[in-house]
Amino acid sequence: MRVAIVGATGVVGQELVKLLQERSFPLTSLTLYASPRSAGRKVAFGDRTLTVQALPREGDLAADLVFSSAGGGLSRAQAWDWAGGGAVVVDNTSAWRMDERCPLVIPEINGEAALGHRGIVANPNCSTIVALMALAPLHRRFGLTRATIATYQAVSGAGASGIDELERQTRTLLAGEAITPEKFRHPIAFNLFSHDSAVGNDGYNVEERKILLESRKILGEPDLKISATCIRVPVFRAHSEAIHAEFARLVSPDEAREVLAAAPGVTLIDEREENTFPMPLTASGKDDILVGRIREDVSNPGGIALFVSGDQIRKGAALNAVQVGESLVKREAAVLPPVS
Amino acid sequence: MRVAIVGATGVVGQELVKLLQERSFPLTSLTLYASPRSAGRKVAFGDRTLTVQALPREGDLAADLVFSSAGGGLSRAQAWDWAGGGAVVVDNTSAWRMDERCPLVIPEINGEAALGHRGIVANPNCSTIVALMALAPLHRRFGLTRATIATYQAVSGAGASGIDELERQTRTLLAGEAITPEKFRHPIAFNLFSHDSAVGNDGYNVEERKILLESRKILGEPDLKISATCIRVPVFRAHSEAIHAEFARLVSPDEAREVLAAAPGVTLIDEREENTFPMPLTASGKDDILVGRIREDVSNPGGIALFVSGDQIRKGAALNAVQVGESLVKREAAVLPPVS
Repeated sequence: MRVAIVGATGVVGQELVKLLQERSFPLTSLTLYASPRSAGRKVAFGDRTLTVQALPREGDLAADLVFSSAGGGLSRAQAWDWAGGGAVVVDNTSAWRMDERCPLVIPEINGEAALGHRGIVANPNCSTIVALMALAPLHRRFGLTRATIATYQAVSGAGASGIDELERQTRTLLAGEAITPEKFRHPIAFNLFSHDSAVGNDGYNVEERKILLESRKILGEPDLKISATCIRVPVFRAHSEAIHAEFARLVSPDEAREVLAAAPGVTLIDEREENTFPMPLTASGKDDILVGRIREDVSNPGGIALFVSGDQIRKGAALNAVQVGESLVKREAAVLPPVS
Repeated sequence: MRVAIVGATGVVGQELVKLLQERSFPLTSLTLYASPRSAGRKVAFGDRTLTVQALPREGDLAADLVFSSAGGGLSRAQAWDWAGGGAVVVDNTSAWRMDERCPLVIPEINGEAALGHRGIVANPNCSTIVALMALAPLHRRFGLTRATIATYQAVSGAGASGIDELERQTRTLLAGEAITPEKFRHPIAFNLFSHDSAVGNDGYNVEERKILLESRKILGEPDLKISATCIRVPVFRAHSEAIHAEFARLVSPDEAREVLAAAPGVTLIDEREENTFPMPLTASGKDDILVGRIREDVSNPGGIALFVSGDQIRKGAALNAVQVGESLVKREAAVLPPVS
């Protein structure tokens, strides 16, 4: 299995390299691609040292499995080329998520959908993954009809420059000096703001629409109702979400807890006496999504309120992609030629 | 009008002193009380310098108007004493909010209720005030039936030690050293956590219950349904809240916007093209609550989603109390003897 990573020097790309090694991914070769500016950089992989290559402007990558996380524009332009030589592209960008030809996959939820790929499997948006890891098991059992979601999103979702901006602005403010926003339109240090994606005529921003539309596709529920408010907070890594959910039947907190305790990829953190619940700090670096504050929605008896935190770079991006790759390897789907 | 402040050296107490001066409150004397530890401290008030007094252990304070913000325990023990000499106590603590004898007042919403006091007027919890400044005008026009709320609460809500903890932990982490939480159970720097108040058997914490019960009392709607998730975020000052609201009739975003644009104490910040909405940074130091992200709740057509930010120390505490005091002065109610 020849593996390539496009965008290997980015935040998600670096996590991909780390995960392939940690999880002993069955690869025969690993080629790292990035922009010409990053070409030549050395990256450790086990006891080997890999040299980052400049991404070819066209054609396939002589790989069987390509992880792409170099931005939607590049994926839109080149992903089918990469898949052309028979590779499966697991695409971390927003380019192909809503394309009918591309399955949108969270392995714990709709892993089998990956097998129907025609060369590209799309990786969902991080805030969608964090929400659905908790909502999908509940949906399967009780029939989710509606959810309202408020997010607390880390700057890592905006890549390395988002992380740098939070650190730089924080240092500057603590030194008593004025800050000038660069990456984000508004100051992020000791502040928070509505997600930095374009707002449509209906008042929802792109991030919020992703949660709605991607959830519908992943769960196969085209009429599912979700309203999200996406907020960027001064946290380096890991997204959190406050969720109110309604189901086709009345659900008790104990039933919800039982389902979530058994859900793959979910860890319950629900210590009321210790006041210990999911936090970005404890979610960071974890594979599982943390779920807690499970209680009846007092504004809608039979509905459930909960709070989740998940590592945005890991399960929200790189880990989910590697899990998709693993499932393809396992089912020997990755070596099949693309269908189209 | 002889005015006294109990807890004058705290975060809210200092803001009270500032506001009385800024707003030229019609006082003939101002006496500042604090714990014996803080007695003797000098505080500027206009061109005068006031000396902080140790709070007497019992009896009234020879004042006509007492602002109390020294903690619920002290208010529970002494507030009726302070009111005993004919003073009106405007109490910023949680001690008397749900007591039937004490009106719970946000002047823009139920200002007339203050006139029915028997010596104590309670000031609502900060997160209740921030939410209701937006919800009450909508309720009056459309009949609020249900709201789900997710809060983003500043450390100032925990007083000066909360503010100190965020700054100290942030400096320590940026210096590459390990932190030890003192004020809060969990780290707050670059982290967030479920509100640091006790969690009850129903899974809701005290802060969340305050929003529900206080809103019912202020709006006079004992069956109002509100489910809140209260989260502490690494922001120094000003609380934000993501709200989904449902009404007795279908409401359009334009109708909601029109009502909020005309609401006293509310400023609309809803610049979709500039992606500029309410933020703690812009709410801090402002008297008004900022409201934006006004849109139809796509999960519940006819419902409204919105996002608010408000200065937790100012309108969320000190300003609201001073406004209550002003309304009592204006209506000459403050000089009436207590009814009971």
